[in-house]
Parts: sequence; structure tokens; C-alpha cells
Amino acid sequence: MVYEATASAPVNIACIKYWGKRDTRLILPTNSSLSVTLDQDHLRSTTTSRADASFEAGDRLWLNGKEEVIKEGGRLAVCIKELRGWRKEMEDKEKDLPKLSEWPLRIASYNNFPTAAGLASSASGLAALVASLASLYSLPQSPSQLSLVARQGSGSACRSLFGGFVAWREGTDPAGSDSLAEEVASREHWPEMHALICVVSDAKKGTSSTSGMQKTVETSSLLQERLRVVPKRMDEISQAIKARDFSEFAKLTMTDSNSFHAVCLDTAPPIFYLNDVSRAIIAVVEELNRAAGEIIAAYTFDAGPNAVIYTLEKNMPFVLGAIKRFFPTSEEFEDPFQTGVRDLPQGFNTGVVREGGWEKGAVKGLIHTRVGDGPRVLGKEESLLGENGVPKILA
Amino acid sequence: MVYEATASAPVNIACIKYWGKRDTRLILPTNSSLSVTLDQDHLRSTTTSRADASFEAGDRLWLNGKEEVIKEGGRLAVCIKELRGWRKEMEDKEKDLPKLSEWPLRIASYNNFPTAAGLASSASGLAALVASLASLYSLPQSPSQLSLVARQGSGSACRSLFGGFVAWREGTDPAGSDSLAEEVASREHWPEMHALICVVSDAKKGTSSTSGMQKTVETSSLLQERLRVVPKRMDEISQAIKARDFSEFAKLTMTDSNSFHAVCLDTAPPIFYLNDVSRAIIAVVEELNRAAGEIIAAYTFDAGPNAVIYTLEKNMPFVLGAIKRFFPTSEEFEDPFQTGVRDLPQGFNTGVVREGGWEKGAVKGLIHTRVGDGPRVLGKEESLLGENGVPKILA
Repeated sequence: MVYEATASAPVNIACIKYWGKRDTRLILPTNSSLSVTLDQDHLRSTTTSRADASFEAGDRLWLNGKEEVIKEGGRLAVCIKELRGWRKEMEDKEKDLPKLSEWPLRIASYNNFPTAAGLASSASGLAALVASLASLYSLPQSPSQLSLVARQGSGSACRSLFGGFVAWREGTDPAGSDSLAEEVASREHWPEMHALICVVSDAKKGTSSTSGMQKTVETSSLLQERLRVVPKRMDEISQAIKARDFSEFAKLTMTDSNSFHAVCLDTAPPIFYLNDVSRAIIAVVEELNRAAGEIIAAYTFDAGPNAVIYTLEKNMPFVLGAIKRFFPTSEEFEDPFQTGVRDLPQGFNTGVVREGGWEKGAVKGLIHTRVGDGPRVLGKEESLLGENGVPKILA
Repeated sequence: MVYEATASAPVNIACIKYWGKRDTRLILPTNSSLSVTLDQDHLRSTTTSRADASFEAGDRLWLNGKEEVIKEGGRLAVCIKELRGWRKEMEDKEKDLPKLSEWPLRIASYNNFPTAAGLASSASGLAALVASLASLYSLPQSPSQLSLVARQGSGSACRSLFGGFVAWREGTDPAGSDSLAEEVASREHWPEMHALICVVSDAKKGTSSTSGMQKTVETSSLLQERLRVVPKRMDEISQAIKARDFSEFAKLTMTDSNSFHAVCLDTAPPIFYLNDVSRAIIAVVEELNRAAGEIIAAYTFDAGPNAVIYTLEKNMPFVLGAIKRFFPTSEEFEDPFQTGVRDLPQGFNTGVVREGGWEKGAVKGLIHTRVGDGPRVLGKEESLLGENGVPKILA
């Protein structure tokens, strides 16, 4: 009998950003955040976890075929320990259960998108780890309860335990028991929500978000005002999502992205994630909305120069038309939705971008995706581990 | 008898920025600001004003040889009207005075720095206009009183009526009577304060500061916090100047520049003045300070990509060494101070800029100047007007 489970988990991109911890060990944020879960059909982390009494002592983990050290007391170890503890409680109650909690683990994880894509893989990766262990251990905990564990692995990972539109509530308990993720609306509620990821080249590696956000907490005065306005913004965007009010959703998303990058700039020394290409994408989206006479697209930027542009499915041809025109990509664009391209709306002022647009490759590539579901438990045939408990990729 | 006066006035660069008006007509700011007046030996506006009963009716003004319309009720007209009013009061009291206030004016103004240098010329230009008219009319008003008039021409012009280190007090009177400039310290108090202006190329014309700042007032939530923290910053930088504490002066200057650009980014739609080259200059200055083990340089950016780097005279060789190394200029650098260049401090991490530095001309040119004096009344030989009241340049 092989005790093993494989699960995949999605990437999420926040509309209301997480930036700042009030507790760095427990990963408790200074403000609530809200994200859209992206479709795993396009971007996902997959993780297989296996427990076996015959494994050599000690847990081992491979990420994309490379073994990672599970540091004692580190974030991975904390997640594994918590889930194992819950399994132990079950085993203590039901004596017939196999003692999986006592057996060493072998875990293999794989991201189907290149690290070079500049997408944070820690959220989907940690969520997949938690989902696969929860499945392996047959844990009864709800996704929100599991999100408490994922949160301690990588803050925004907690949001990847749900599909659709997801809030991470900051909570008030100093121990973190109420700092968890919950669904605001399912993907089925608003399936027309699509996203275009613009992968922007950057010569320089930026500040890591982990260290950057604490610098902001320590040195930015403007962060105080941000923390005062985010609760209202959380309410407003939740309502916009429930009402499927794209214009309002978009305004709040762009406002919050700009507010987040503003507090980064207000940090000492200042943190810059947006570069000239990011700025130009903002200008194109703003002008697209102006020329369209309504807000049809919303940009948002995480801790890097890549843009994610949210738009409704029907308006993606306009977004693609504008982006492809000004930012010829170096990588071929394969659109899973076979969306066409529409011309710029009449009255679009092409002067907002530099003459002739940008050089090929300023935007490396485009990824078209949409709102997606939460973690999926996959069949055996998707296992990443070989018989010996070593990733198949290495066998 | 020719009634004429010629005056020159300096450029000023704010350390605590002016951004936002509480009254757009009177130009009353949302916060106090503080600047360093730069040396007129290097950068100046010169203005000649002449009153003559024989001139055709109506005032006329030329800027760099090009006639500008003096719009009824416009900012130029308001300044002229106020000063003429003060002259009228004198004439009413002293009946022997020539009735200059009744005569048409001819005004010629000239900036010795190219508009392309990207330096705001409105401050020095308006200050020179006010100074020349005050001299022509023999007005007894103090520089602070004159600053009330210059302020209505172009907000930050009020600070160019003083040399040294100058505060523009926001004031509380709705009529603006106490929103004026005053000296915090003279140039003689801290003559070692030098400045290096890095003229940065930008493909795109940015948002004008006049419209940009009101967009910020209307849409930025973070501005509220900025307005709360600026008063303390004003006190602290005034104390730093009085104590000649460069490190504190520099920290506050950089913090406020970043805070200003942060609220620009927090504006809807966002306003960007810093580009990738500006960011790189910031990175070089931050790294220079880190590697030097003390704060020897402070960057500040106005509503454009140009950097102004404040440093003490003794440390300019380090600043020049770093900037010239990473940003080869397209224009020859002529240093009026013949300052040498020092190597990067040991331990300077060159990884903060992109490999090989920037291409020639990313920084177009450098201007080395220092703290300077206030407006100067010049001799007749400096007059910009020919016999007929038309600029000599056109004669």
C-alpha cells in the first residue's frame, strides 16, 4: 500500500495588496488583502507527498527536481509539522488509522511556469504542498483552516487554497487563529474575468518582498495612511465583485496597486518595482480606458515589473490589440482562448507611449488566463514521485 | 530720463517639496516647503523692466526674445498689477514722484540656461520680474512682502527672492497674506553646500506640475499623511541647516523627495516623473552613502527625471566620480570649480547599476553649482532692452 497524494494549486494575483507583517514569525499581515485565483489549466504548482515507514528518517523535498533543505524551524518545516500534528490527533482518536504521522515524507513539487516568468511561485507552491499533505493525511480541516498553515509557509499562499475571488482577513488574534483566507465569490460567479500577464524584462533583480515589506513597515510614514484606507477598499471591492461591477473593481485594483508601489517608494531606501516598461503599460491601459469611454481594463503589479491586466473576456481583444501593438514580444504568444485582436478605439492618443512603441522583447511574453478554481486533488497517474520516493524527473 | 531697472534672480531647488494648492487662484499651498537657492553665477533669469510715458498703451513682455501675451487676469498681469498698485500708493503720498505707475511697461526676460535643461525657469523668471519691477518702482517692500507677489505668479518663485536656505510658510490667512517666503539661513552660514544637477533625457513630456498637483489633491489618499508629516520635517530640516548637520539634512531631503513622488504615484491616473535613469541615480547615491559609511550625498527630484544631488564641497569629488563613471554624458562637463574626481569608496557594490553602466547620454549633462544669493539689481550695461523698448536681441 502506497500512501501518497498529488494535488495542484493555482497562482493568485492580488487586487488589494499584502505589504507588511505585524508578526514576521507567524506571518500576520498589517492589512487584509484580496486576490483573484488564476486558472490552473494555465499556471499551477503540482505537489506529490508520500509517507512511507521504510523511508530513511527525515523528510525530503524536491522543487522542480532540485532538492531543497527543509530547515529545522523554517517555513516548510512549520507547515509540515502543523499538518502532521493534525494527522496525529486523528490517529490518536482512531487507533486503526495507519500511523502516517510517524513516517518520513518525500515531497516533490513542480511549477509548470518558468521561474524566469517572474511570477511568484511560492504562493501556488505552498498551497499545493498543503493540499497534497491534507489529502495524504485525509485531514478534515476546511480550506480556511488549511489556509492558516499555508499562510505560515508564505503569506499570500493562504489565498491559493480557494478558487474565485479570495480575501485574506488580517485578523486580530496575536496567535493568528483568525488570519485566514475565505472565498468572497466563486469563479462561477464571474467567469468572464480574464487576465493578461505581461512578462516584463528587468536587468536588475529587485528587492525581495519579504525584506522589502518590513523595510516599508519600519520607514514609511505614508504606510500609516494606506493601512487606514485599505479596510474601506476591501469592502468596496468585495461589493464590486458581488455586483459584477467591472468598472468599480478595476478602479479599486489600479488604485491599490499604485498605493502599494507608492509606499514602496516612500521606503528608505526607496524600493522600485515598476520600470519604464511597466510605466508604459500603465499609460496604455489608462489611455485605452479613456478612449473606450469606460473602464475596460485594470493593471496591477506585484513586487516586480510584470503587469497583470484584468479585463472581461469580451474586452480582451482590445487589451490584446493595444498591448501587442506597442510591446512586440520576443516569445511567441500562444493564446489558449484563441482571442482575436481589435484595433485601438477611435481617439486613442498613441503619444502616451514612446514613438514607434517599444523594442521587441521589452515585454518578453504574454500569458492569457482567467479566474480559476482552488486546489485539485489529482490521480495517481499525475504522481511526481517514483517508486523509490525520489522524483521521477531524477529517476 | 530713462526709468528702467534690471535684476537677476536665482533658481531654487526644494528639499521639502511644494505639491498641492489649497487655493489655486491665490496659489496657497497645502504645505510649507523649503529650498536651497542656487548660485546665480551659474543659473539665473535676468529681467529688465522699463516704464515710459511715450510707449504705446499696454504692457508688453518678451521671454528669451519671444513676446508673450500678458493675459488679462493671468498670473503675469496679477504680479504687475500688485507692484504697480504699491507704486501708486507711493505716488499718491509723494506728489513729486514721477507717475511710473501710469506708464506702460516694456519687460524683457532671459534665462541663461536652456529650457531643454529641464530646469523649471518659472521660479527664477517670476522672481527676476518682481525684483526688477520693485527696483524700477523703488518699492520699500521687504523680500518677504515681494514674495507674496511672486507667489501669485508661480508658487515656488516666492522662494527665489532670498538667497541661502529659504522656507515658504503655507500660512493660514485665506487671503494669503502670510503665505510668504523667509530666510532660514544665509548662504554664508553654510557656503560648503554644493549641488550637482544631472540632466536626464526623457522621451516623453511628463504631466505639468500645475495640473499634476491638483490631481494629487483630488485623488491621492496618501497625500493626507504627507500633509501630516511635513510640518515636523520642516522643523527638523531647519534645525539641521542651522546646525550644519549634513547627514540629517540629506536624510530629510531624500525622504521628502521620495514622499513627493510616492503621492504622485498614488494619484489617479498615476503620475510618474522618475524614469529608469532617475532610479539608477538614486541607487548610486544610496550605495555611495552606504559604502562611504556616512551620508555624503542627497538626491532630490522635482517634477521631472532630472536629479539634483546636494553634497558638501569636500565630497563633490566622490559624487562626481560615481556619477561620471556610471552615466557618461553626451555634453562636455565644464566644472566652474575644477573639482577633481575620486574613485568609488572601497566596498561600493557596482551591482546596483546595470552592467557596464548606462549608455552615453542617458544623463545628457552635468551642472555643478552651490548655494547662492538672492536677487541682484544689475547695472545699466546689463539692460536687455534697446532704446525703443524692444529687446536688444531683436533690434
